[in-house]
Amino acid sequence: MTSRLDQATIDLLGVLAYGELTAFERLATDARLAPTISDKHALASMAAAEFDHYRQLHDHMVNEGVDPEAAMEPFVSPVDAFHDSTQPNDWLEGLIKAYVGDGLATDFYREVAAFIQDAPTRGLVLEVLADTGQASFAVERVTQAIAADPTVGGRLALWGRRLVGEALIQAQRVAVERDALTELLVGGSLDLAGIGRLFTRLTDNHTARMRALGLQS
Amino acid sequence: MTSRLDQATIDLLGVLAYGELTAFERLATDARLAPTISDKHALASMAAAEFDHYRQLHDHMVNEGVDPEAAMEPFVSPVDAFHDSTQPNDWLEGLIKAYVGDGLATDFYREVAAFIQDAPTRGLVLEVLADTGQASFAVERVTQAIAADPTVGGRLALWGRRLVGEALIQAQRVAVERDALTELLVGGSLDLAGIGRLFTRLTDNHTARMRALGLQS
Repeated sequence: MTSRLDQATIDLLGVLAYGELTAFERLATDARLAPTISDKHALASMAAAEFDHYRQLHDHMVNEGVDPEAAMEPFVSPVDAFHDSTQPNDWLEGLIKAYVGDGLATDFYREVAAFIQDAPTRGLVLEVLADTGQASFAVERVTQAIAADPTVGGRLALWGRRLVGEALIQAQRVAVERDALTELLVGGSLDLAGIGRLFTRLTDNHTARMRALGLQS
Repeated sequence: MTSRLDQATIDLLGVLAYGELTAFERLATDARLAPTISDKHALASMAAAEFDHYRQLHDHMVNEGVDPEAAMEPFVSPVDAFHDSTQPNDWLEGLIKAYVGDGLATDFYREVAAFIQDAPTRGLVLEVLADTGQASFAVERVTQAIAADPTVGGRLALWGRRLVGEALIQAQRVAVERDALTELLVGGSLDLAGIGRLFTRLTDNHTARMRALGLQS
């Protein structure tokens, strides 16, 4: 199969699609931890939205002559490893993973999307990165839980740090293995100082999200 | 909240909605067991279809002045108990659960739907009972697996029987606890001989599904 899209764009579509597909699975799985039917409803709705994003990316690849399975395959191992190392132990950890993990990924992909040459692909990527409602729901539930029992704050703050650590380990692995994707950022587009500023933006946003939850980052 | 729908119809909407919501969660969870990305894609697509059914039932209840949570609540315990007692140990068991379990539930609900007085509700129930693609996909994959290793057939046949047994235990529990729902079937609508014929139809269809998988029922 040949496509007019370059390898970096195909890589980005692949990692994003597999990320959405697994986010769907994990959110739906975590919905089982929900304490009430309405919490279950909320988390299941977010999961369904992730699946819809996955389907759009999948169909876009097919339309562009890209084999979706081949595009996703290189990212199965790092994405699965991230999820396996960050399985939530309870409902609150699941919510924070949905909010903090998804937020970090979204920020990163949005930065990368700016460098996609193909306009329709860039538009679709930005569209599927739209908020699926995780943010306000997670903030509301987590702050309620901390208000009811302030001692959970310490544990959840550690959990937030662990999520970022595991995400960076896997991102590093992808950067080493996927030259095209790395060059999309580093190549002509960003110099070292630019990458430094990118990381500062990602970190600042992460800190803001943790603060919104009432947690130290 | 008051609704023009009778209690039996509300019960049916409640059990069906909670059944679809949990089918969604469990199918999405089982998608993690999928051996290939394309199998994962197939199972996740079915899960998303179940969520879409759930959403339609949920919205219909809201429009009819029924509180969806209150309608689902009586069925949380039996439906969860069914799923907890039938957690698939591998991908094939998950597929059979999707096909055989969903098939049995669909047959049963379709029979009950005939007795719903309210025409829009009856139409919606029949619509959400439409096949979500489980059947042909499961049959294809399971028969392939048995052809590759005939010894798995015995284990999977036992699994099929266990699914039916656990479903009957929980159905019995619901029948005892939810008078309105039981009377919808037994009351004016069906006499004992009619119930006998209903069970014969359900059993025959179950046997046909197991045979399609190449399994003894």
